[in-house]
Amino acid sequence: MAKKDRNAKDRNARGQTLEAAAGNGLIDRRALLGRGMVFAGAMGAGVGPSSAAAGAEPLADDPWSLEFGDPTPRYQVPSKFEAKVARTLSNPNHEPRNSHSRTPHHLLEGTTTPNGLHFTINHGGVPNIDPDKHRLVIHGLVKRPLEFTFETLLRYPMISRVSFVECGGNSAPMFSPEPLQESVQALHGLASCAEWTGVKLSTLLEETGIDPRAKWFIAEGADSPHVSRSVPMKKALDDAMIAFYQNGERLMPGNGYPMRLLLPGYEGNMNVKFLRRIKLVEQPGMSMYESRTYAPILPNGKAYQFYFLQEVKSFITSPSHGLTLKGPGLYEISGIAYSGTGRIEKVMVSADGGQSWAQAALQEPVLSKAFTRFRMPWRWNGGPATLQSRAWDEAGNVQPTRAEFVAARGELVKPAPVLAFPNQHYNSITSWGVGSNGEVKHVYA
Amino acid sequence: MAKKDRNAKDRNARGQTLEAAAGNGLIDRRALLGRGMVFAGAMGAGVGPSSAAAGAEPLADDPWSLEFGDPTPRYQVPSKFEAKVARTLSNPNHEPRNSHSRTPHHLLEGTTTPNGLHFTINHGGVPNIDPDKHRLVIHGLVKRPLEFTFETLLRYPMISRVSFVECGGNSAPMFSPEPLQESVQALHGLASCAEWTGVKLSTLLEETGIDPRAKWFIAEGADSPHVSRSVPMKKALDDAMIAFYQNGERLMPGNGYPMRLLLPGYEGNMNVKFLRRIKLVEQPGMSMYESRTYAPILPNGKAYQFYFLQEVKSFITSPSHGLTLKGPGLYEISGIAYSGTGRIEKVMVSADGGQSWAQAALQEPVLSKAFTRFRMPWRWNGGPATLQSRAWDEAGNVQPTRAEFVAARGELVKPAPVLAFPNQHYNSITSWGVGSNGEVKHVYA
Repeated sequence: MAKKDRNAKDRNARGQTLEAAAGNGLIDRRALLGRGMVFAGAMGAGVGPSSAAAGAEPLADDPWSLEFGDPTPRYQVPSKFEAKVARTLSNPNHEPRNSHSRTPHHLLEGTTTPNGLHFTINHGGVPNIDPDKHRLVIHGLVKRPLEFTFETLLRYPMISRVSFVECGGNSAPMFSPEPLQESVQALHGLASCAEWTGVKLSTLLEETGIDPRAKWFIAEGADSPHVSRSVPMKKALDDAMIAFYQNGERLMPGNGYPMRLLLPGYEGNMNVKFLRRIKLVEQPGMSMYESRTYAPILPNGKAYQFYFLQEVKSFITSPSHGLTLKGPGLYEISGIAYSGTGRIEKVMVSADGGQSWAQAALQEPVLSKAFTRFRMPWRWNGGPATLQSRAWDEAGNVQPTRAEFVAARGELVKPAPVLAFPNQHYNSITSWGVGSNGEVKHVYA
Repeated sequence: MAKKDRNAKDRNARGQTLEAAAGNGLIDRRALLGRGMVFAGAMGAGVGPSSAAAGAEPLADDPWSLEFGDPTPRYQVPSKFEAKVARTLSNPNHEPRNSHSRTPHHLLEGTTTPNGLHFTINHGGVPNIDPDKHRLVIHGLVKRPLEFTFETLLRYPMISRVSFVECGGNSAPMFSPEPLQESVQALHGLASCAEWTGVKLSTLLEETGIDPRAKWFIAEGADSPHVSRSVPMKKALDDAMIAFYQNGERLMPGNGYPMRLLLPGYEGNMNVKFLRRIKLVEQPGMSMYESRTYAPILPNGKAYQFYFLQEVKSFITSPSHGLTLKGPGLYEISGIAYSGTGRIEKVMVSADGGQSWAQAALQEPVLSKAFTRFRMPWRWNGGPATLQSRAWDEAGNVQPTRAEFVAARGELVKPAPVLAFPNQHYNSITSWGVGSNGEVKHVYA
C-alpha cells in the first residue's frame, strides 16, 4: 500500500474507504463505527484470520460443558487461567525493607483498578491492624483535640469519589538514558484508580475546630515506620478525605486498612495509610520523605521541595511491550490518562512517532483526578510504527515530550549516585515501537 | 425532647439549631455541613461517646506499630478482620443443583461492588473455561455466520460502562406475608454493580450482517445447563454488549468468564454468562427460564411473559437489619437506588414510616442503569423510628409501596405452591423498624 494512500484513505475488506485520522493507519472512530465493515476473516485488512465461518448445529461441547463446575466461594477470585494477571513484587522474599507491588495495566481494561491489583508500597510490611483497637487522633493547633474510634468515624456523613493514586516515583525507569525493555507494569505500575468512600477531613476539622495559626497538618501512619507527611491546610479544607472503603469494600490491608488519608491528585506517599494522627502545625515537619526522597536535586543544582502534584500523564496500555501483534489488520490502541489538576481534556495519539496526531475517544464519564480510558482504532499495515499518546488536562497543562522533560529534570547519570534516579514525578510521553514481526519495544522517540 | 421541637428544629451540642428536613430527626444536609458542629463527645446530641479528648504525646503504640508487617501478595484480599464481609451461599455443600451467592450490601459503601463480592447464580457449578479454547458463534438469521476466538474479539473497538445486574428473583423474600427478619444481603443481595468493558453486540452484528427477518436473538452459555434466553433485536442494537472485563480485570469465574452478555437494566438471568452462541431468529426460543421461571402467574390468573426490565428500586443499607444503633445521636442513613430504565432522578427518605419525607443527597456521578448511592443525615432521638427510602427514575417511574405492590402482584400463599414465591421482579419500598434498644427489624409499613 502506497504511503500516500495509507495517510489519506484506508480500505476495508468490502473495498469501502475509511477516513484516516492521522498517518500510519490511525482511523477516524466515527468513520469506523456503523459502517457495516467486515473485519473478521478478511486477511490482512480485518482483525485477522482467527474468525471463521460458524460450525453446523449442534455446536460441539467443550469439556467444561459436559461436567458440573466448581463450588461457589464466599469471596471470589480470578480464574486460574488469569494467574499471570498479578502484581509484580520488588521484595518477593519479604526481606526487612520496603516492598513495591505494581499494577499490570497491560492486562487490564476500563478505568477501575480491581482491589486485588491496586499498587502498594509499604515500608514495614503490611500491618495487621485490628480496626476495633485502632484510633485516629486529631490534635495540635485545634480548639479541641479529639480521639476517634473507627466505629465513631463511620457515623459521620460520607462521600464517595473516584480518584487515582500515584507514587511520586512512578515511571522513574524512564529517567534511564536508554529505553529499558520493560512492560507498562514495570514502567507505570505504581498508579491505580478506585472509588474511595469515607469522611471529608474538613468534616472532622469542624469537630476539632482550627486554630488560625495552623498552616499545615502532619499525617502519620500506624505502620512500624510511622510514615509521616506534611500537607498544606488548603488541601485539608478542599478535597482531602479519610477513606475507609475502596471499590465498595473496606480498604485492602496494603492500601491502608482500616483508614487512610486520600489527597486526590497529590503524590501517593502523602496519602498516608493506616492513618492514626492528624496534627495541625505552623510549619511542615520535614520528614524524611519530604526533605530527602521527594525533594530531588535538579540539573541546575537546586532541589524540588513540596512538589505535591501528580501532573498530567498518559500511556498506551495496548499494544505495549510484552504484547505481540498477530499480523497486520485492525487493532484498538487503548490507554489511560489522568491529571492531579482535574479532568482530562483530550488525548492525542500518533502511530508515526509524533509526525501526525489524531484525537482519541475518551470513555465517559470523564472524572476529575481519575483514570480516563482513551481508545483509537488503528489498522496496522505490518510495517514499523511508533505509537505515542499525549494528554491535556482541563487547566491546559500538556504532557511533555521526553526531550522536553529531561532537559528540565535531567536523566540518570552513570555511574548512578546514591539515589538511583535523579528525581521523581516523571510524566513524559511513552513511545512503543512496533516491529514488522509484531513485537513491541520501548523506544525514545 | 418534645415532638414538636423534634419535627421542626434540632439542636446540636453547641445549642445551634439544625433545620429539620422531615419528621423524626431527618436533617437538612446543607444545614448540617459547614456549620462547625460538635458531634463527637457530646452525649446524646452527637455521634456518641466513643470520641474522647486526644491523649498526650507521644501516642501510645499498638502492637502492629511495633513489628514488621505481613508480606505483600501478588493478588491482595481483604483483612482477616473483614472475614464476615462475604457472600452468603445457598448451596455451601456444592450439591448438584443451582447455587446462589449474595452481596453483603449492609457492609459495603459507595456504588461499586468489588469483584470478590459480586453476586452469582450458577445452575451447574462454576465452569472452568479455557479462554484460548472457548469460541463465540454468531449465526442463524445473519448474512455471514462467524465463529470468534477470544483473542480476535479483544481486537474490536471496546467500550466501558458501569451497570448493575440484578436477578429477576432478587427481593423475593418480601413476597412473604410476614416480614422476614433477614438482612439486606438476604433480601436484596442478588444485585450488584460493576464497570464492564467489552465489545458492543451491534459491532459484531455489523460483521455478520443481519437478515431483516431476525426479530430476536437467542443467547446460550457454555456452562453444562447451556442456560439460554431470548432477547429482542432492539436491545441487541441498543446497549447490549459482550463483556470481558469486570472492574478492570477479566470477568470473575462465577460472573461468566471469559465472556458474558450484558443487557443493562434487564433481568440478570438474560445476561447470559460463559457466552458461546448468539443465534438470530424470528421467534423467541421459549426456554425454561422465559416460559416458566420468569413467566410467573399473577393474582388475576394470567402470567407475565417477557418481563425483562428491572424496575426502579431502592433500599437503605445502613441502618438495616443486623446492624445495631449504639445509642441516640447522629447517624447517616445510606442506601442504594437504581433503575433499569435509566438514571435515578431522586430518592426520598422517611424516618416516620412514610408520614413525612425528605430528599436524600445523591452521590455524583449519577449514571444510567447503575447503582446510585443516596445519603441523609439523621439524628436518632432514641425512640421508635421506621426508616424507608423511595426512588424515582428519570422516566418518572416511582418505586411502589408494599401495599401497592402486593395488590398488583400478590404475595406468598400458604401452604406454598410448587414455586416458593408467586412471582419475580419485586421492587417495593423496604422498611426498617428501629427499636428503642437500637435493634433494627424488617417491618412492613
